[in-house]
Amino acid sequence: MGEFELIRKYFAAAPCAQGGEGIALGIGDDCALLALPAGEQLAVSTDTLVAGVHFADPCDPFLLGQRSLAVAVSDLAAMGANPLAFTLALTTPTVSADWLQRYAQGLNAMAQRCGIGLVGGDTTRGPLSLTVTVFGRVPSGLALTRGGAQPGDLLCVGGDLGNAAGALPLVLNQRTAPPAIAEPLLAHYWSPQPQLALGLALRGKATSAMDISDGLLADCGHIAKASALRLVIEQQRLPLSLELLAFLGEEESRSAALSGGDDYVLLFTLPPTELAPLLDSGWPVKVVGRVEQGQGVALVDSVGLDITPVMRGYQHFRETH
Amino acid sequence: MGEFELIRKYFAAAPCAQGGEGIALGIGDDCALLALPAGEQLAVSTDTLVAGVHFADPCDPFLLGQRSLAVAVSDLAAMGANPLAFTLALTTPTVSADWLQRYAQGLNAMAQRCGIGLVGGDTTRGPLSLTVTVFGRVPSGLALTRGGAQPGDLLCVGGDLGNAAGALPLVLNQRTAPPAIAEPLLAHYWSPQPQLALGLALRGKATSAMDISDGLLADCGHIAKASALRLVIEQQRLPLSLELLAFLGEEESRSAALSGGDDYVLLFTLPPTELAPLLDSGWPVKVVGRVEQGQGVALVDSVGLDITPVMRGYQHFRETH
Repeated sequence: MGEFELIRKYFAAAPCAQGGEGIALGIGDDCALLALPAGEQLAVSTDTLVAGVHFADPCDPFLLGQRSLAVAVSDLAAMGANPLAFTLALTTPTVSADWLQRYAQGLNAMAQRCGIGLVGGDTTRGPLSLTVTVFGRVPSGLALTRGGAQPGDLLCVGGDLGNAAGALPLVLNQRTAPPAIAEPLLAHYWSPQPQLALGLALRGKATSAMDISDGLLADCGHIAKASALRLVIEQQRLPLSLELLAFLGEEESRSAALSGGDDYVLLFTLPPTELAPLLDSGWPVKVVGRVEQGQGVALVDSVGLDITPVMRGYQHFRETH
Repeated sequence: MGEFELIRKYFAAAPCAQGGEGIALGIGDDCALLALPAGEQLAVSTDTLVAGVHFADPCDPFLLGQRSLAVAVSDLAAMGANPLAFTLALTTPTVSADWLQRYAQGLNAMAQRCGIGLVGGDTTRGPLSLTVTVFGRVPSGLALTRGGAQPGDLLCVGGDLGNAAGALPLVLNQRTAPPAIAEPLLAHYWSPQPQLALGLALRGKATSAMDISDGLLADCGHIAKASALRLVIEQQRLPLSLELLAFLGEEESRSAALSGGDDYVLLFTLPPTELAPLLDSGWPVKVVGRVEQGQGVALVDSVGLDITPVMRGYQHFRETH
């Protein structure tokens, strides 16, 4: 079976590939064609997952399909964009019909959940890796960026932190836990839920936003730098799930929340007056600190003492990694 | 040096990353933002090059930079789209400042030639591979697709065929040739020129178009299938360069033109009345055959006898490859 048949057979038949509003031409030509309503911009982001680096190989291809799309769509959530379409560049050493079918099922399940359509890609032979490029729509001028935080803003996140990093010893079969603990943690790792609805709700309210992929400390550093301000995290405010605390204890859970990656929860800054309306509407907003004049990121304890650890957010190519 | 500094240092400083018309937000946030004029659509295509599969490793990173972008931009030419922006997902086993600098120089040289700006990407550790996703603009309804060929159309290409495939033994150091032969052939392989201007000139004239990446026979098959018609190639009309003929002789040159990949020359169908104006304007249009009722692709000799070989265009995962 040739490259073209492969792509069509496993990916193009899925509901997510049928195209929706904004997809003028889907899979099968030299390019896909996307249409944008007047007054909107296209948000674009690319993410690569490499076997042995970003995920264990072998792994369940269904879960990998879900995760490979979710981590990319999370960048659309972080910009306050509406998902539109994505492309998949799949490099695989061998063709396994079973593997491809399971992978495509996982991909399509996440695509349907996010309302995003597959419009093209490339399939090549080589060491297993997946590059997903996502496209979203956002009204001109309303995209959430990293650069608009203001002194006095609250520093907020969209949910519990550290669950995916906490799940890593389970993913790698290094440790075990009872199902009541293991299952929710593994779900955070394999099937992160891009906070698309929260991203839309933050349009015009949050002054800056991003998604947490490298760990809270490292990602706060990106907002601090882009906004030329200082972000202060209050340690006792870190939202930690009961499963994580039961699995790792308090100290390790905090470490996972601060320096573990892969949470894909939104991180944003909010004028204090915007907080109550969001909470009243039921959005999962947790305040973890504040924005001040200055630069960099500080972690403080319950009496305000600076306890910032040496930064060690997840960065590829670091010698410590 | 972290992932972020890497990307910025070698890619973001280049002129092509400064952004131009249509790039509302470039490198450095969760997403890039692209703006489209009213009445235009966005053309999107993704291409992956894997070391050891699509190029020899080691190779000159400058040439690889040029080629990795050119093969993707060629898909924009095939749609009649104007280049706008691209993302780069770079996976590399080690960080070499020299390699990255040379690669970025080659990439940027091609980006400037094509008028396209780098807006984002991802850098990961792993076996060397490159995924480039390109974005172009095309007025709604004017994109050239594979599906519109008509019986009676001329089958045309935008230049000589087989040069890149002919260069392969030189690229792999399996054969040598005098500089007067080797240099132009190697240039076709390493620095293909996306036929962007020709693509624009064909808008509203060509009834179907694509770029030749898998070889003339295989790619004619795509147009034949999408247009539900039969494409007939006349063997004596195959445009072959003097360098290729001098290097391979007539029979091998024909084989390279028919079944070799990587030409990145446009393949299109044209109503006969459109031919003379294009030739008068100096466009490099060569007629290689015609479109008929029926299906599939046929190769005929000078007296019209069917001499179609078994199809063996470049397809990944085929056992013959």
